[in-house]
Amino acid sequence: MSDSLVKRLFDELEALPLIDPHTHINPHAAASKNLADIMGYHYYTELAHSAGLAKEKIEEPGISPKEKVGRLIPKLSTIENTAQYSWLLEICQEFFGFEEDRITVDNWEKLYDQADQVLAQDDWEQQVLKKSGLEQVYLTNDFDDALAGFDTGLYVPCLRTDDLVFHLGKSEVRERLSKATDRELGTIEDVQAAIRDLFTHFTKNGARACAISLPPDFSPTLVSANTVAASWLRLGNGEKLSDCESRELSQFIFWQLAENCAVFNLPFDLMIGVNRRVYEDGVFQGQDLYDKRTSLIQYRQLFNSFPRVKFPISVLTTTSNQELVSYAWIFPNVIANGHWWYSNTPPYIESDCRTRLTAIPQTKYVGYYSDMYKLEFALPKFRMYRRILAKVLAQDFVQDRGWPEDRALELGKLVLRGNVESIFGG
Amino acid sequence: MSDSLVKRLFDELEALPLIDPHTHINPHAAASKNLADIMGYHYYTELAHSAGLAKEKIEEPGISPKEKVGRLIPKLSTIENTAQYSWLLEICQEFFGFEEDRITVDNWEKLYDQADQVLAQDDWEQQVLKKSGLEQVYLTNDFDDALAGFDTGLYVPCLRTDDLVFHLGKSEVRERLSKATDRELGTIEDVQAAIRDLFTHFTKNGARACAISLPPDFSPTLVSANTVAASWLRLGNGEKLSDCESRELSQFIFWQLAENCAVFNLPFDLMIGVNRRVYEDGVFQGQDLYDKRTSLIQYRQLFNSFPRVKFPISVLTTTSNQELVSYAWIFPNVIANGHWWYSNTPPYIESDCRTRLTAIPQTKYVGYYSDMYKLEFALPKFRMYRRILAKVLAQDFVQDRGWPEDRALELGKLVLRGNVESIFGG
Amino acid sequence: MSDSLVKRLFDELEALPLIDPHTHINPHAAASKNLADIMGYHYYTELAHSAGLAKEKIEEPGISPKEKVGRLIPKLSTIENTAQYSWLLEICQEFFGFEEDRITVDNWEKLYDQADQVLAQDDWEQQVLKKSGLEQVYLTNDFDDALAGFDTGLYVPCLRTDDLVFHLGKSEVRERLSKATDRELGTIEDVQAAIRDLFTHFTKNGARACAISLPPDFSPTLVSANTVAASWLRLGNGEKLSDCESRELSQFIFWQLAENCAVFNLPFDLMIGVNRRVYEDGVFQGQDLYDKRTSLIQYRQLFNSFPRVKFPISVLTTTSNQELVSYAWIFPNVIANGHWWYSNTPPYIESDCRTRLTAIPQTKYVGYYSDMYKLEFALPKFRMYRRILAKVLAQDFVQDRGWPEDRALELGKLVLRGNVESIFGG
Repeated sequence: MSDSLVKRLFDELEALPLIDPHTHINPHAAASKNLADIMGYHYYTELAHSAGLAKEKIEEPGISPKEKVGRLIPKLSTIENTAQYSWLLEICQEFFGFEEDRITVDNWEKLYDQADQVLAQDDWEQQVLKKSGLEQVYLTNDFDDALAGFDTGLYVPCLRTDDLVFHLGKSEVRERLSKATDRELGTIEDVQAAIRDLFTHFTKNGARACAISLPPDFSPTLVSANTVAASWLRLGNGEKLSDCESRELSQFIFWQLAENCAVFNLPFDLMIGVNRRVYEDGVFQGQDLYDKRTSLIQYRQLFNSFPRVKFPISVLTTTSNQELVSYAWIFPNVIANGHWWYSNTPPYIESDCRTRLTAIPQTKYVGYYSDMYKLEFALPKFRMYRRILAKVLAQDFVQDRGWPEDRALELGKLVLRGNVESIFGG
Repeated sequence: MSDSLVKRLFDELEALPLIDPHTHINPHAAASKNLADIMGYHYYTELAHSAGLAKEKIEEPGISPKEKVGRLIPKLSTIENTAQYSWLLEICQEFFGFEEDRITVDNWEKLYDQADQVLAQDDWEQQVLKKSGLEQVYLTNDFDDALAGFDTGLYVPCLRTDDLVFHLGKSEVRERLSKATDRELGTIEDVQAAIRDLFTHFTKNGARACAISLPPDFSPTLVSANTVAASWLRLGNGEKLSDCESRELSQFIFWQLAENCAVFNLPFDLMIGVNRRVYEDGVFQGQDLYDKRTSLIQYRQLFNSFPRVKFPISVLTTTSNQELVSYAWIFPNVIANGHWWYSNTPPYIESDCRTRLTAIPQTKYVGYYSDMYKLEFALPKFRMYRRILAKVLAQDFVQDRGWPEDRALELGKLVLRGNVESIFGG
Repeated sequence: MSDSLVKRLFDELEALPLIDPHTHINPHAAASKNLADIMGYHYYTELAHSAGLAKEKIEEPGISPKEKVGRLIPKLSTIENTAQYSWLLEICQEFFGFEEDRITVDNWEKLYDQADQVLAQDDWEQQVLKKSGLEQVYLTNDFDDALAGFDTGLYVPCLRTDDLVFHLGKSEVRERLSKATDRELGTIEDVQAAIRDLFTHFTKNGARACAISLPPDFSPTLVSANTVAASWLRLGNGEKLSDCESRELSQFIFWQLAENCAVFNLPFDLMIGVNRRVYEDGVFQGQDLYDKRTSLIQYRQLFNSFPRVKFPISVLTTTSNQELVSYAWIFPNVIANGHWWYSNTPPYIESDCRTRLTAIPQTKYVGYYSDMYKLEFALPKFRMYRRILAKVLAQDFVQDRGWPEDRALELGKLVLRGNVESIFGG
């Protein structure tokens, strides 16, 4: 296989405008203001901390953005090998005119100032969208987000539901729900109505998905309102629920979400496998890990009960990838979605991408989403994926299967963009 | 590594006549009668359904074979990327003179008619065996199969035992067993005698293996006849068994099978890891999935208890492959067998093949079986495997280890054919 | 990517003197005395047994070393494909002047005699250290090892603690501990003091690590002395502990070890995932296997409780590798350590190495240790690793990331040697 074939496919894929179907962008502050916004991404703080930088140094209250970056820089030398670092370097080179191949204690201040200049431009947000080929950016909105003050055609709302499913036992979450829906939540029926209100609010504002991240041991099942009605009353009286009652409430709410996804015709993004706060003294957003002992069999009842709800599924580990391939191969409503978090480095992406592309209907694999917090990350992250996709297309389709180049490219475009439109709505 | 080396190795492997040690061929109708027999293979119906074709369309009673194919065709465009599709295409090209590289709504009818012509030939069965290089084809026979009316030297019987182990609680299965062995099954000792009868019947008719597929949570263990005797009587009285009693009965029967394998010197094919009917509304044979949380440690007592029984083992998932490699490396009676079902696509085969070939005694890996229902599938499936095997031999042995080409080929032939003979009997 | 690039990187890595941070070398008999010492390595006896050689043949009491080798030789033809065999061949070629590419029934006697001549040299131990580039060799010492009579600068002691954690219920182990520390062990406080004595003894003698291998179901947790005090007294009275009490005692002792690692500033090598004696009739050291259903989440409390203790972690299976990558990426005290046992063959090493090098801080991956029992194995085992490391550096860093060659080499040297020094002490 010739490298030039891979290069040609890559170049064509680079030219394709993108819809990014899962990000954590704040539409009111989508682009970075300074290099600290970029290097404050948990990938860098957690890796620097893992390499020995004290959390107190990184998270000292009141330090300036430049001071924060200055403290991270010396540790960068220990993480230069990582794919995560390569995103940072590519951002600096693409956007800030950085011409060296390492960010060091000697060159970072100049880089910091260059970044400041670039990021201070009035139209930087538009520039970065354009340079990155981003046509639409899906958001992760709290359930009580007003969804106002931004262009929902560009920044597409998605209803994130972790708080509803896992934290409704907390009075502050119940109060947020009450306030957002302007309802008293005295009974479980009130909660059902409130959830329906959220779906109405979100879909009115162009939402394209309901989304949730789930721990490895979660098993959705049908729980009736009757089952949790008494627990709900006790919660309202300030009582605590047992672990079993809490689990039932979570399962009840989750099932309500799925029912509303059916009613409102929203895909339900499931991001399966994360344990929160495993490393309790880790940096912000750098505390979560997992237990690989999880299975999609836990979702058997869900997939069977909601045949008309699309479930784009992200799995946290490569050991779950084959289950995702097989379940997407069998269940019409299961879709393989992107390459998530701890599986979002090149070796995992390559094998997961290859196994999906050779076994799942091509219409059921959403190639990539950036998961980014700031717009600048779409370019290097999608580019990483495009490099791998081009390689897999070249090897497995053009070379091994004898496909003409343009047909392989057509498959690449479908996975990179077409499926986002057909699955989430164009 | 040169592509021509891989090509030479592949060509040599292609020339080797095969014994296919596991299929679902019906010896009374081994070859396809029309394209619907081929496209009715669950790989195509389930993928078309997964891609959105309604089960009711696919399985509508009374539709003609041609109508059925015509309904599947439009969905083929969504599964062209899959390895499963590539088998279909190769069948059409090799056997039916199909010269295009896609089967479409425009060209399928001509293809259908060409297939009809080819398949209608009186000697098609012999032709396809010859073209595919098949010398012997192992079957999957129900325990009450008469094993009559076909050449058991060509179509080799194997005793499939899922019904005995998992469905003896059903009166119709007990009646089948009673009828097949001409025994009253009043006591558990009667059952033991009946099972022995089955082994006698099968081995008299040239059977080469006892086989079973097992769910992920199955753990064989020695259960005495005394333990299940009372349950058996209650079954006979029309009573239901508890889950625990059913499990004990399954384990008891399973152990009886292993004991008979020892007595009758039959390999016991274990196909480990499938959950049946996970997707209850799936198409015929397209409903089974799995829970990857299974371990060969569950078979510890079995492997220790039957040192003289050979256990060719198929694992459903690549995450179980390393266990299979390690257990086959340590236990003399554990043999790695083929690349099964959800692990039977090129990326999984390649890594599983490579890890086996570099760590297990070369005499303990049966390279491939087709698992086919119709003879036409042996050619593309074995060819897929041969391509991968040639690549692994070229890379890992000729290139990395400096082996001469003919020595790598010798290894390939052993794995592809020699081990089938030495393990199942020549 | 050019093969010559890989070759150049490999050659440079070959020239780097090594510290081998985990072996089972006996410092009083570090080198082999004859070919039986080499072929008696469990990798060959267990593979020959797996391929059909009776344990009684291999372990017959009283047979001469040459007779033992002579019995193994005929089975070698069945394991020539394995990586394990390639180590043996490389030893014979590098050290014994063997010039053929297979060890056969025809050429083995000459080889045996050549080996005898080489190994009989007075300075063979020094020769093999030099030829293998070994500057230091870490040991695996029983807790009651006197650590006397050898150069602890060359052969570095490590405190192996399996017996303490898992076998203190046996009176002979308690007696060994009592004798080694010259203490009565009447109370649990005595045990605590004895353990501290061991750490004092080992660190005084230059120990660089505490080490233990752990079964898949082990979950360390804080257990107080009070909790186990009564159990300990009952043990002393000759009573048996329940499974639960035994587990608590194991957890208590394990936690004591971690506390002492903190006090004495010793890394705590965790080798996670092995079940002992799964194949009860296997050859010596060829009986252990595993249950892949294990997770690093079981070590959550440990990693959180001992932030200043370094935990170099070996996982037995490639399905645990991503957890190791992710935990080392998040926890500052978790270090990825080598490629262990059933994961120590090229395909597993390559994917595990690649995923680590592209996601973990480069300072937190100890590339390799030999795990050898005799010095001759360092050369082929490290060479296998260096070949793979050179390939990954060439592909993933020079080619894919555009790194200059010397920078990739710098990374290779860090992983192969530098990290051993910084993590275990120079």
